[in-house]
Amino acid sequence: MTTLISGGQVLSTAGASAADVLVDGEIIVAVGAPGTLGPADDTIDATGKYVLPGGIDAHTHMEMPFGGTHSVDTFGTGTTAAAWGGTTTIIDFAVQAKGTSLLSTMDKWHEKADGNCAIDYGFHMIVSDVNDSSLKEMQACVDGGVGSFKMFMAYPGVFYSTDGEILLAMQKAREIGATIMMHAENGIAIDQLAAQAFAEGKIDPVQHGLTRPPELEGEATSRAIQLAKVTGAPLYIVHLSASQALAAVAEARNDGQNVFAETCPQYLYLSIEDLAKPDFEGSKYVASPPLREKSHQADLWRGLRTNDLSVVSTDHCPFCFKDQKELGRGDFRAIPNGIPGVEHRMDLLHQGVVAGELTLGRWVETCSTTPARMFGLYPRKGVIAAGSDADIVIYDPSAKQTLSVETHHMNVDYSAYEGLEITGKVETVLSRGRVVVSPSGFSGSTTHGKFLSRDLNQYLN
Amino acid sequence: MTTLISGGQVLSTAGASAADVLVDGEIIVAVGAPGTLGPADDTIDATGKYVLPGGIDAHTHMEMPFGGTHSVDTFGTGTTAAAWGGTTTIIDFAVQAKGTSLLSTMDKWHEKADGNCAIDYGFHMIVSDVNDSSLKEMQACVDGGVGSFKMFMAYPGVFYSTDGEILLAMQKAREIGATIMMHAENGIAIDQLAAQAFAEGKIDPVQHGLTRPPELEGEATSRAIQLAKVTGAPLYIVHLSASQALAAVAEARNDGQNVFAETCPQYLYLSIEDLAKPDFEGSKYVASPPLREKSHQADLWRGLRTNDLSVVSTDHCPFCFKDQKELGRGDFRAIPNGIPGVEHRMDLLHQGVVAGELTLGRWVETCSTTPARMFGLYPRKGVIAAGSDADIVIYDPSAKQTLSVETHHMNVDYSAYEGLEITGKVETVLSRGRVVVSPSGFSGSTTHGKFLSRDLNQYLN
Amino acid sequence: MTTLISGGQVLSTAGASAADVLVDGEIIVAVGAPGTLGPADDTIDATGKYVLPGGIDAHTHMEMPFGGTHSVDTFGTGTTAAAWGGTTTIIDFAVQAKGTSLLSTMDKWHEKADGNCAIDYGFHMIVSDVNDSSLKEMQACVDGGVGSFKMFMAYPGVFYSTDGEILLAMQKAREIGATIMMHAENGIAIDQLAAQAFAEGKIDPVQHGLTRPPELEGEATSRAIQLAKVTGAPLYIVHLSASQALAAVAEARNDGQNVFAETCPQYLYLSIEDLAKPDFEGSKYVASPPLREKSHQADLWRGLRTNDLSVVSTDHCPFCFKDQKELGRGDFRAIPNGIPGVEHRMDLLHQGVVAGELTLGRWVETCSTTPARMFGLYPRKGVIAAGSDADIVIYDPSAKQTLSVETHHMNVDYSAYEGLEITGKVETVLSRGRVVVSPSGFSGSTTHGKFLSRDLNQYLN
Amino acid sequence: MTTLISGGQVLSTAGASAADVLVDGEIIVAVGAPGTLGPADDTIDATGKYVLPGGIDAHTHMEMPFGGTHSVDTFGTGTTAAAWGGTTTIIDFAVQAKGTSLLSTMDKWHEKADGNCAIDYGFHMIVSDVNDSSLKEMQACVDGGVGSFKMFMAYPGVFYSTDGEILLAMQKAREIGATIMMHAENGIAIDQLAAQAFAEGKIDPVQHGLTRPPELEGEATSRAIQLAKVTGAPLYIVHLSASQALAAVAEARNDGQNVFAETCPQYLYLSIEDLAKPDFEGSKYVASPPLREKSHQADLWRGLRTNDLSVVSTDHCPFCFKDQKELGRGDFRAIPNGIPGVEHRMDLLHQGVVAGELTLGRWVETCSTTPARMFGLYPRKGVIAAGSDADIVIYDPSAKQTLSVETHHMNVDYSAYEGLEITGKVETVLSRGRVVVSPSGFSGSTTHGKFLSRDLNQYLN
Repeated sequence: MTTLISGGQVLSTAGASAADVLVDGEIIVAVGAPGTLGPADDTIDATGKYVLPGGIDAHTHMEMPFGGTHSVDTFGTGTTAAAWGGTTTIIDFAVQAKGTSLLSTMDKWHEKADGNCAIDYGFHMIVSDVNDSSLKEMQACVDGGVGSFKMFMAYPGVFYSTDGEILLAMQKAREIGATIMMHAENGIAIDQLAAQAFAEGKIDPVQHGLTRPPELEGEATSRAIQLAKVTGAPLYIVHLSASQALAAVAEARNDGQNVFAETCPQYLYLSIEDLAKPDFEGSKYVASPPLREKSHQADLWRGLRTNDLSVVSTDHCPFCFKDQKELGRGDFRAIPNGIPGVEHRMDLLHQGVVAGELTLGRWVETCSTTPARMFGLYPRKGVIAAGSDADIVIYDPSAKQTLSVETHHMNVDYSAYEGLEITGKVETVLSRGRVVVSPSGFSGSTTHGKFLSRDLNQYLN
Repeated sequence: MTTLISGGQVLSTAGASAADVLVDGEIIVAVGAPGTLGPADDTIDATGKYVLPGGIDAHTHMEMPFGGTHSVDTFGTGTTAAAWGGTTTIIDFAVQAKGTSLLSTMDKWHEKADGNCAIDYGFHMIVSDVNDSSLKEMQACVDGGVGSFKMFMAYPGVFYSTDGEILLAMQKAREIGATIMMHAENGIAIDQLAAQAFAEGKIDPVQHGLTRPPELEGEATSRAIQLAKVTGAPLYIVHLSASQALAAVAEARNDGQNVFAETCPQYLYLSIEDLAKPDFEGSKYVASPPLREKSHQADLWRGLRTNDLSVVSTDHCPFCFKDQKELGRGDFRAIPNGIPGVEHRMDLLHQGVVAGELTLGRWVETCSTTPARMFGLYPRKGVIAAGSDADIVIYDPSAKQTLSVETHHMNVDYSAYEGLEITGKVETVLSRGRVVVSPSGFSGSTTHGKFLSRDLNQYLN
Repeated sequence: MTTLISGGQVLSTAGASAADVLVDGEIIVAVGAPGTLGPADDTIDATGKYVLPGGIDAHTHMEMPFGGTHSVDTFGTGTTAAAWGGTTTIIDFAVQAKGTSLLSTMDKWHEKADGNCAIDYGFHMIVSDVNDSSLKEMQACVDGGVGSFKMFMAYPGVFYSTDGEILLAMQKAREIGATIMMHAENGIAIDQLAAQAFAEGKIDPVQHGLTRPPELEGEATSRAIQLAKVTGAPLYIVHLSASQALAAVAEARNDGQNVFAETCPQYLYLSIEDLAKPDFEGSKYVASPPLREKSHQADLWRGLRTNDLSVVSTDHCPFCFKDQKELGRGDFRAIPNGIPGVEHRMDLLHQGVVAGELTLGRWVETCSTTPARMFGLYPRKGVIAAGSDADIVIYDPSAKQTLSVETHHMNVDYSAYEGLEITGKVETVLSRGRVVVSPSGFSGSTTHGKFLSRDLNQYLN
Repeated sequence: MTTLISGGQVLSTAGASAADVLVDGEIIVAVGAPGTLGPADDTIDATGKYVLPGGIDAHTHMEMPFGGTHSVDTFGTGTTAAAWGGTTTIIDFAVQAKGTSLLSTMDKWHEKADGNCAIDYGFHMIVSDVNDSSLKEMQACVDGGVGSFKMFMAYPGVFYSTDGEILLAMQKAREIGATIMMHAENGIAIDQLAAQAFAEGKIDPVQHGLTRPPELEGEATSRAIQLAKVTGAPLYIVHLSASQALAAVAEARNDGQNVFAETCPQYLYLSIEDLAKPDFEGSKYVASPPLREKSHQADLWRGLRTNDLSVVSTDHCPFCFKDQKELGRGDFRAIPNGIPGVEHRMDLLHQGVVAGELTLGRWVETCSTTPARMFGLYPRKGVIAAGSDADIVIYDPSAKQTLSVETHHMNVDYSAYEGLEITGKVETVLSRGRVVVSPSGFSGSTTHGKFLSRDLNQYLN
């Protein structure tokens, strides 16, 4: 069964060029000059459209346990929403609970995800319990296709690791070629500030932002970088939100250190003003790091241009406003942390292209190619090229749409971008050669997605 | 007439992947999974080899007039040597003489080059005489496919432009979308230092280096950046050699300014110790900026990794040791400036890959893809992709060779890298589909190369 | 004849302490614990007042020729106004005209000033014409007590020196131990921008600011620093106004280079909004560098705190609004450059103390002690200490006054600070032991001031 | 009883000037021009000598408990040695043991020191146990003349405070006007590295240095600075040893933050090569932070010049080679931390003057005036001025001496500077008007020194 996508502008990190794409089964078998390939069993006319590699969202949390509840998207609903938005791969986080092993955690996540995803998926491993046994298991995780390990400098008592534990994990990562991902906020100091605010009767969602100042993200980012330098490990900073943290990353990169960072659409488009919305509306925007003053946004866009920010992920972690966010009414510290977003990343970043903030090449690079390279999926994913998986998005750059809870496909009762008007829209999506989204709707299946056993980072020098 | 290159590792900016390449006439028509393309009229077996886009040397000076003599490679000999070394495109400099027009200069260079090149070629325009008339002609140059204009902050009385003239040219470049290239050394101060040294009886080649301190390259680079900022023009720093200049470029890029820089192999491999060789041997290494202390080299390699240095060109400008360099015996200021190198760029930078300084992807990017994008040749040149010109190099990464005047093909009586052992070697070169170099030798022709009418820079945001 | 100043708070760079000061003739002979000195012929009760070393204004232009007119304060009126404001020493600029010698220039300025000053005075020498002869004369200037030489990177055709000339003068300064002072603006580029603006019909005073962007002050400052580094000469940047220039100075100082800078009250209190005042009022605020956007002010105050700005001078150069500023109606380029200010420096900077921007110690240091040390007058001037000249200001920190042309003593028909309310006021001023200002008015004489033959800079390491 | 010190060069932060000093009882009553003061009961001829304010060593540890032993200098022997070296004030550290109160700690230290010191002394308080009670006691400490509180980011389980505890103490310090002093090394990570080294059989003293890399001092310094920024507290970094930490301090100071740092003579003169001496000799040089690679020394000297390093203290903490350092034979982690030095600070820093690294003014400023201002002793201490305590050193700048355990007065069995030749020597020392050291020897008494109830920092803006 072959499919020819003809007449489109094929996008790569270097920009657009007119080409046809021939798919045979699950694989792209050739990219050819217009009119030179085929015939094929099926032809999709992409005239006037972009043909780009499917998006890769390297940071999602489907059905994640958090404080007695779970993020509300299952692997099924979340990956379906992702597909609607032009994302054909997610890398979700398996979460080690204290006292449990990494391998049992991995098993548990396989149970949740296997057979339940609309698109391909991989895992990172969250290491909450650093000890001899879990350090040893890291190699087994790598062997199982999970070569990236996330640690937390925040959330003491839950995910938090001490600097000594981080050091140990980094040494091990260096030894086995794995990558350490870091949630870089000084959680010890933040918890102190949050407790003080609460003690003073400050309970509203905006306190979540005020008690997590950007200096404490900058500090933790610098600290992680120095620990990485001492150990020689590569470092990937997740969900960077603050100018101070960006400056630390930029300095390390200028010095040639293997330090990378992602940001998320919410830090580019939303701000602490959203957190300050009255009537507990602000709770919808509670995530960590918190939304910042708007002045940070220009720095983040610049960072995406200069590649000091290499990746855009979503940190998708949806909790319903009703029932779930509600848990923190009366104490901002108890609001479940997370913002839904897996469906809108490609569209939101395309607005950066429309606004002249990013080139087409950087759109594809930050949303697909670099995450593929960074997390051992390239060239299987992240590029329109012969031999690659036929994960393909046909995108209409001039269509219009409005984001809303009424129309989105994520399983959550609000949209953080309600009413936002978007230029550009996904028209057709192929996942491993199968059309899963088309103008006539979703044609995929939550049994289609396969687990991706990832290689080690091929991106680092 | 079709050619299939099969079994190789196709290189792109993202690294290597196994693929076959199908060429029809002058064009790559398809890149396909191994075994999926063809059959073709001809097949080249690339098993165990890299298949990469032909090198683009964006900085050469063929038969350039300089102080009563000429650089000794003609367009014919120089482009033939380039082809031997895996470079399939050069961009040479048309040199406006004071009192002449840009268009007559362009005509003159067409006369020299047209019909005399073994590979494709384009021109940059050196602007030596900024006035109302030449500023107006810049648009006509762009229309003629020459959208990049080089200016000099060095060589007072010859190519030198004042800051006011630079400002005017930058304003015009900004208006018409052209790029200003800058030789950034403070020539006014340097000439003073050189005159003092000569007056003190210091006449040897090493004085060329000592009177052009790196601070004065850093200074001029900073100045050019500020003038570019005031005018809003993009800026491309040529042949960056000094840590100080790199720091200025890195800072501007971090701030999001459209500033780019190239370095050259001689600054990565040679040093002021070469300039200090006795018996006038140092004259072989006289070029501007001068070779620096070795401590600069590590910074330059790091700059290539971090993309603060985007391009590697050669500044190929050969003068014979006998007769030509000789002109400066007794006065280092009269030594013709230039080092031969067009043939060795791809090999020398491959040593960076061997040494772990660069990835394969960065090798291709700095030597081919980025120059193509920077100078309006992409995707026609600089990439192995359907629709692109079939400028293809098949490179054996494990072959050994030794650089020497005995074996090189440049028309000059010495090698700056005499005796240097190289890992890797060009095996076969296609220029627009025609095999011009193969294991049996040079099979091209100096009438094959065509003038490239270049688009404006597609690389800048 | 002895005078005892008792009961005051004596100020030094380290702050305030209660002490009595005994003056004998022109000299301070002892500083003693309260009540331990005397009796004396005269006693001044300084209870509740500050007793500080007289201000030193290291940058004034009395009766300076400029475009066919002169700055309107003579040495007599200008130094009298200075005394009213608590300044007991000025260092004025002797201006070499092109084609004349430094020594004849010095003679000419002695003619103007000698016997005509109310307070002590010294000279800096403006070098406009760098040649073998003037370079040789620099030593004679030093011998004559003038060891600081100002050069201009602005004003092409008038004071402008090329980078080569600056290099020569710096080499000479390095050799003889003198200091180069620099007006750091890229005048070549600025003149181009100004000519363009005028050609486009933009003639108002605000254009003076718009055509001299801060980037071109930053650029020139960096350039001067690099030339100083190459030559090994100490460098003093005059009237620094822009954040960009401050950043360059701070970086050089952090690197340990002997680079210093002064700013002026107008850059701390006035802005480009003043330049934009309608009805040609903006002309009152035309000086170079121009007044900047207000955002620069916070950086300048910080620079004063951190000692990246070491000195506050006035660049006092008064031209009457009527008749003189008028010359530039119709062409902003013809407005005489200068703002009157010699009288208000101590008061304006005291506002910084009141506002918490500066400590008392830094007030004294930037306005008196450091200029004395920087320009070879210490410990004769700039400190309340035994053996020093009895140049003493008794300052009432809580008195109130309002600045106005109605009440000031400068010979000019407007105040740049009209209506500004000031906390603090000079009560009594001694110049070399003589009371020249007291609550009953001016009791000095314009024959009192003596020429100060200055030593070389004692401040540099 | 009056004393006249005549004929000397009186030193201040601004340099030297000829003056006589009149002392009446414990106080300087006048500084006068040569020959203008007196007569007095006693006259000391200081011709050809420097007359400078007595040194202030703001960081000593006399008879400090450490791992079951004590530093071997008592307050009596240590302050006597200090006097011999021209130091007339020490500020020692009272050490809160976990589970005890700050006030009982202060009482304990008064018991040790009161009546047992040869010179005046004050205390800082080491806070090891942050809790509601100790936070409240901080005000009482201030009331008792102890307004500076030291915390540790190193030594987990002993003195270590978490970032949350540091935050609380800083908030309190901000509230009451106190200063936080910080031992900035990432002790958590260091302990991990040290345990690993030991586990690998690496037991020698040099491991102390290798397991405490300078990056981890830089990191902790940055972290302390950010915590200080979040809380608004002033911060004083103790014993800064590494270029990385200096860079962090310099950046904060450039930004106008109230951040200060001291370094110690051992970091200026000794290096990790000393730590690597064979036969356990290296143990003599074990202190924290450790001695660094020599390349750090030039940065530290530059920091002293640029005032990014404001103070030179000794961190004097002597343990005998025999018996005490011996405790760590077999495990470098058990070597008592500390180097003796209180006697040699003035001499060692004078070598910086001799070598042209520092001016005379900076010698006095870093060793006496700034510590006085920083720690609330100015103008009582730290300056030769009327009203100040007569703590005076008469220093012969051309005398020669050789440092040695044979001749030093500290109660310890080795000298870290054995055999070092010194230019300059203390001749006479007055402590509160009493001659305690003279050419005929020590004439003081260990009952002479008084406790100094210090004001809050008067230095910060």
